[in-house]
Amino acid sequence: MRYKLEISYDGKNYSGFQVQLDKITIQGVLEEKLSIVLKENIKITGSGRTDAGVSAFSQICHFDFGGALDCLKVLNYANHLLPSDIRISNIEVVQNDFNARYSAKSKQYDYYFYLGKVNAIYEKFAVNAGYNLDIEKMNNACKYIVGEHDFTSFCASNTSIKDKVRIVYDAKIIKIDDDLYKFSIVGNGFLYNMVRIIMGTLIEIGRGKIEDYFMETIINSKNREMAGKTALSKGLFLKKVTY
Amino acid sequence: MRYKLEISYDGKNYSGFQVQLDKITIQGVLEEKLSIVLKENIKITGSGRTDAGVSAFSQICHFDFGGALDCLKVLNYANHLLPSDIRISNIEVVQNDFNARYSAKSKQYDYYFYLGKVNAIYEKFAVNAGYNLDIEKMNNACKYIVGEHDFTSFCASNTSIKDKVRIVYDAKIIKIDDDLYKFSIVGNGFLYNMVRIIMGTLIEIGRGKIEDYFMETIINSKNREMAGKTALSKGLFLKKVTY
Repeated sequence: MRYKLEISYDGKNYSGFQVQLDKITIQGVLEEKLSIVLKENIKITGSGRTDAGVSAFSQICHFDFGGALDCLKVLNYANHLLPSDIRISNIEVVQNDFNARYSAKSKQYDYYFYLGKVNAIYEKFAVNAGYNLDIEKMNNACKYIVGEHDFTSFCASNTSIKDKVRIVYDAKIIKIDDDLYKFSIVGNGFLYNMVRIIMGTLIEIGRGKIEDYFMETIINSKNREMAGKTALSKGLFLKKVTY
Repeated sequence: MRYKLEISYDGKNYSGFQVQLDKITIQGVLEEKLSIVLKENIKITGSGRTDAGVSAFSQICHFDFGGALDCLKVLNYANHLLPSDIRISNIEVVQNDFNARYSAKSKQYDYYFYLGKVNAIYEKFAVNAGYNLDIEKMNNACKYIVGEHDFTSFCASNTSIKDKVRIVYDAKIIKIDDDLYKFSIVGNGFLYNMVRIIMGTLIEIGRGKIEDYFMETIINSKNREMAGKTALSKGLFLKKVTY
């Protein structure tokens, strides 16, 4: 039987989601604890990887197990074994053709940043973007991102993926609290470092280093060199996977 | 000369703000590092204490030093020595009659809570308040708190303070993000555990255990037993001190 797993995690102390030799990863820790709970070797499949330092409000995975489970009991026991920075929020039986990775229709990522002086609280999960960012210009630039585009300009150069066309359904900056903002983006899929490179570019637009309408030129250039720097991983959160 | 110091801190790993024998406190660490930077024994005075586990977006302190300082240089050097969960955001010269504690006109505290399943991210700085809280009723109850009242019902019983009359200028619940809320309160001063006891009471009102209009009866009773539990320290943040 196939089970769907919803988890949240603070990625700060992990080498990303995906299992890697000799590194502590979200997937690795989850598989270890679920294997103890279920007394057999469990392999999980996530909706996708998240990089080292990236967190998730809601990440979806699936795993197979040869019997009926008391899902709530498994959830409570696994959460008891797991470190507090990884929490299982739901386990449920799904159809066998459900695949956490391939059935995903869209994903939402949120990137947190804040203005003004360095702050011990915000510094934990958001990037300090300095003073006087022009949020309106950043939102104008976001409009060019929405739609179906070849996002080569916003993809880390060390990737083997060939098809770099993705659809972005929504992209905008939202004010959260006094000096705290998030850049929220929804798409059918994201290239390696795509959200972080878009964020880095938007910050340069907010600072006036790049004009907002130049975002269109950057996209059309299909050249990573034209876009801004890759923003730090700590501000990035996988918010939601939709099926 | 007198200097005004603005700091932020994550209180998670500290036994509160105020210096205590054999305990690691915000004030203790700050005094130690500033004394290294300024090469003399520095004593600081905060606007008030915060309890163990309570954080601050902006806490104001003052200290005296017998000479003119290059404030930015002191700030950078001290931040270099300080652990990353305490950050100095500003140092400036002030008049000698400025007192971080006695000159304070009002303070704002924010208390973060979230609804739904336990979440690894929110769990770091907010309290999980379960499902289906009636935020409207909680906001109705807030209206009774605003004004000048004897807040004995919302004061930890182990206190030596006699005058328990305080003025609350504003108190409300604000939605921050999907399932994340904060209770924000501004007043001329706060009794020991006052914000946390009000929050605990508001959560019981949100859950329907206490009617919103009963808040008035709780205040008038001047009886700590009538109010709710003291909410956990981790959700509480000193947001702003106004002079």
